[in-house]
Amino acid sequence: MAAEALLESWNDTPARTGIIDFVGGVSDEGSSDFVLPADRVAVFDNDGTLWSEKPIPIQLDFTLFRMAELAEADKSLRDRQPYQAAAGRDYHWLGEAMVKHYHGDDGDLRLLLGAVESAFQGMSVESFQAEVLGWLQNASHPVLHRPYRSCGFVPMVELLRYLEANDFSTYIASGGDRDFMRPFAYDIYGIPPERVIGSALGLDFDDGDDDTRLVYKSKIEFFDDGPQKPVRVWSRIGRRPLVAGGNSNGDIPMLRFARTGERGALRLLVLHDDADREFAYTAGAEDALERARSHGWTVVSVRDDWRTVFADS
Amino acid sequence: MAAEALLESWNDTPARTGIIDFVGGVSDEGSSDFVLPADRVAVFDNDGTLWSEKPIPIQLDFTLFRMAELAEADKSLRDRQPYQAAAGRDYHWLGEAMVKHYHGDDGDLRLLLGAVESAFQGMSVESFQAEVLGWLQNASHPVLHRPYRSCGFVPMVELLRYLEANDFSTYIASGGDRDFMRPFAYDIYGIPPERVIGSALGLDFDDGDDDTRLVYKSKIEFFDDGPQKPVRVWSRIGRRPLVAGGNSNGDIPMLRFARTGERGALRLLVLHDDADREFAYTAGAEDALERARSHGWTVVSVRDDWRTVFADS
Repeated sequence: MAAEALLESWNDTPARTGIIDFVGGVSDEGSSDFVLPADRVAVFDNDGTLWSEKPIPIQLDFTLFRMAELAEADKSLRDRQPYQAAAGRDYHWLGEAMVKHYHGDDGDLRLLLGAVESAFQGMSVESFQAEVLGWLQNASHPVLHRPYRSCGFVPMVELLRYLEANDFSTYIASGGDRDFMRPFAYDIYGIPPERVIGSALGLDFDDGDDDTRLVYKSKIEFFDDGPQKPVRVWSRIGRRPLVAGGNSNGDIPMLRFARTGERGALRLLVLHDDADREFAYTAGAEDALERARSHGWTVVSVRDDWRTVFADS
Repeated sequence: MAAEALLESWNDTPARTGIIDFVGGVSDEGSSDFVLPADRVAVFDNDGTLWSEKPIPIQLDFTLFRMAELAEADKSLRDRQPYQAAAGRDYHWLGEAMVKHYHGDDGDLRLLLGAVESAFQGMSVESFQAEVLGWLQNASHPVLHRPYRSCGFVPMVELLRYLEANDFSTYIASGGDRDFMRPFAYDIYGIPPERVIGSALGLDFDDGDDDTRLVYKSKIEFFDDGPQKPVRVWSRIGRRPLVAGGNSNGDIPMLRFARTGERGALRLLVLHDDADREFAYTAGAEDALERARSHGWTVVSVRDDWRTVFADS
């Protein structure tokens, strides 16, 4: 049970105890729960699990920024969604698109994804990285009034370090875009690019005479949510996770995938119940919460389990 | 220039010196060639680069084993290619399918891939692992007369360790199937599953009431060769490689991708010119050899640069 002092922003509640007990068991060679270090894999959703996702996922705000630029350059786009919402910063329309998705209605999400798909067509992976970092340097949260780069949940970052101190390999496995997260995932979470899993735009190899480039297509390769999450986790890691954390219905398959008939798993579900310090909502998480109750997943209450939510910015 | 003693199966030739000089430069903080450890990524093709690929890629022999089983169970398959070749162990037909592919004719390869696609339909990833390991335990090379699991090139395994000793992260990036290589890549090469990149069959998430499973579709997701190689390297790692090794035309894009306008790269091309100890052929590697000559890639001659090819089995 090494390094539990790392979990200093967690209150001394059953959630924290459950984490420490689980990690202690799989790390104890004398325990029947022992798991070899190589198989100690932990995967975490990003939006709503490692950082705030309300009123809209942060990546959407970046994409709005880009779409507003595109609408500025091409006036014919201004009366069409999602460019209209982008130009007017209509967070409600955009937030609802995600909630509708989690409820099975993908119409607005498809409009959004279509615009996301074409927003970066022909851009190289390196230029995209620079765009993300340039935007993130100045962008701030419209409700929390702190820089987006300070919107990571401190207790979750501590949990990543705690797991690593117990020989876990930690990964992000998010519905968000893989290459959007990669440029800042190390600074915010300590997670390097090779351990960031997410949705992906298709890529073309542009073999110019001199330098080669990888450039984005105007086509998503896969949307890493729901049943795609375990597929993408396997594709990247080649092992089942032993710890899986999420916060919404889209994380259910990944959390279920962690357990096997031979061994248990730690499944964490972040419950957003703190309107004072963050947000309070369960829309899009109803099935996950129900499954947590019926299958003994560990619900992590922002209000009750976390002493601190955000770092001082 | 740490750990060069690890390269003990390499003769003292310009190839070895070139490797040591390059690694020494990128590892030397005082050098203008210095590269941060996190960006020291090395990727290697597998078939023909890390182990023998003649008379047919070893994975094909595994697939033949499986296809012969299927043909045994379903007699209508026996007169059709590639089942006919599989049942008769017709290595010539199969080897030529790959050579034709490298020359731009994908007809026979498509037949093969179609059969590969359907050979494991509905099988779980864990069952597939067990199949691979069970087969590999007894399968041996038809020409080299040694167990397949002893067909790795000792100097290349030493090179992997040498690079790791100099803070490189090493990856396999092969046209072969990712999940075929994963079960044995650690034992043969010291490469864990999360650092094995390759072609992939599509996967479905089977969320049965109790245990969940990932099962293979009868459909390839992507064939990791040619321009797909840099795409897959980026998808998995999120960085350009600094060292890239291959042996055929299909590796050219990956080797080209390693260099940028800002920094050099070490590109290694294994030349099979040792009919006594391994094989001698250049079919399917002509363009790569030409590019090596014109662009200063390091050609590694099996005959001249390697003191030992295989470990005692």
